[in-house]
Amino acid sequence: MPRKSDVLRETDANAIRLGRALIREAQYAALAVIEPETGFPFVSRALLATDIDGVPAIAISKLATHFGAIMADDRVSLLTGVPGKGDPLAHPRMTTLCRAVRVEKGSEDHARLRARFLRRHPKAALYIDFPDFFLFRLRPISASLNGGFGRAYALDASDLVSEDALSTYVGFDAEAAISSANSLLADANTTKHNCIDADPEGVDLKNGSEYVRLDLNSTAIDAHNFVALLASSLEKIP
Amino acid sequence: MPRKSDVLRETDANAIRLGRALIREAQYAALAVIEPETGFPFVSRALLATDIDGVPAIAISKLATHFGAIMADDRVSLLTGVPGKGDPLAHPRMTTLCRAVRVEKGSEDHARLRARFLRRHPKAALYIDFPDFFLFRLRPISASLNGGFGRAYALDASDLVSEDALSTYVGFDAEAAISSANSLLADANTTKHNCIDADPEGVDLKNGSEYVRLDLNSTAIDAHNFVALLASSLEKIP
Repeated sequence: MPRKSDVLRETDANAIRLGRALIREAQYAALAVIEPETGFPFVSRALLATDIDGVPAIAISKLATHFGAIMADDRVSLLTGVPGKGDPLAHPRMTTLCRAVRVEKGSEDHARLRARFLRRHPKAALYIDFPDFFLFRLRPISASLNGGFGRAYALDASDLVSEDALSTYVGFDAEAAISSANSLLADANTTKHNCIDADPEGVDLKNGSEYVRLDLNSTAIDAHNFVALLASSLEKIP
Repeated sequence: MPRKSDVLRETDANAIRLGRALIREAQYAALAVIEPETGFPFVSRALLATDIDGVPAIAISKLATHFGAIMADDRVSLLTGVPGKGDPLAHPRMTTLCRAVRVEKGSEDHARLRARFLRRHPKAALYIDFPDFFLFRLRPISASLNGGFGRAYALDASDLVSEDALSTYVGFDAEAAISSANSLLADANTTKHNCIDADPEGVDLKNGSEYVRLDLNSTAIDAHNFVALLASSLEKIP
């Protein structure tokens, strides 16, 4: 990310945690593409999900302006982070530059991502299987994190994406893990969060209209280990 | 706006009113520019104000990524419209393609726009006069309005910008008009809105964290006429 180095802070563990959360907790993003006919940057709103490795994903129709744009030029960026109340610039947000990769229908990747997208956005079941709808993984290249006034950080792909997540996912039963997580959450009695998705590195929780990503302390190696790791992480839920 | 024509509805008065409001009522926008070094579309959050003719405006620092981008390529787009509660795609939003024009410091345009920006964003007084801060008018070229699922419209510049507003503004005393408007609103007793800015074509109102644009039925020709037109428009406040 080309920025004046004197306005950037050193990227530390807190900045990386915030950056990952700004993607994992986003329900939607402002998605910028390059309009092929005019060359203008074109920004619109898109529902967002994440793949298990933290790569953001979108589901779009061939009829949308950004579909043709992405097929002509895979360079996109995402703005995530909800403005909240008061000054919109006081709230953390992040610009992530990505390359869009269409996920082949019928592939294992498609089945996994489709299931994750629907767990995040159940109403998308109405259209996600239409022939003109496609899933895209938006592979992060770099990101510009703004944690609020004067708190700017540059992140790279390895800060945001878990390279080994796809291999550790083999054999992971997401539905069973979600069910275990919700039993744990119900027993804990200290939180009103529900688990809406799970992967070997963490869970995506929802409380009313608020979404929270909870990372485990390490990568779960099996279902038993997942439950143990999650049990010892529940106290981190804000 | 190149879109499949069969997904577009005919642009009517309601679509134009909604499109204008989506710019006039926006406190911030997702601003997309083209990053000169990489060619990526780069989307970030910016505070937004409007000039009296409805042209959106931003105040940005030379240190920001989008400053260098805009100076290298004046093509930008804005996404406005707050997602609100529930499904983010159920709420109206608009993509406006614009050409950015830097407003010369010391000019009459700069004084007018600076005052309007500060009435909308009082905290910007902390930095707006810094030597590295500049105001840009973002002149709309065309817009893609999405009023919610399946309600898509194409708008052009003349739908969004009042070409004769700058000439009718000559001699208009904004501070006096705001004061008159607030007296009227206080007397009306039917609304809790405050007037935060005024021009010969309407007023910008605020109620708590909600912003509302109220257009007059015609363009005010003097201060007396402004008050009369506004008095007869108060019932339109939602």
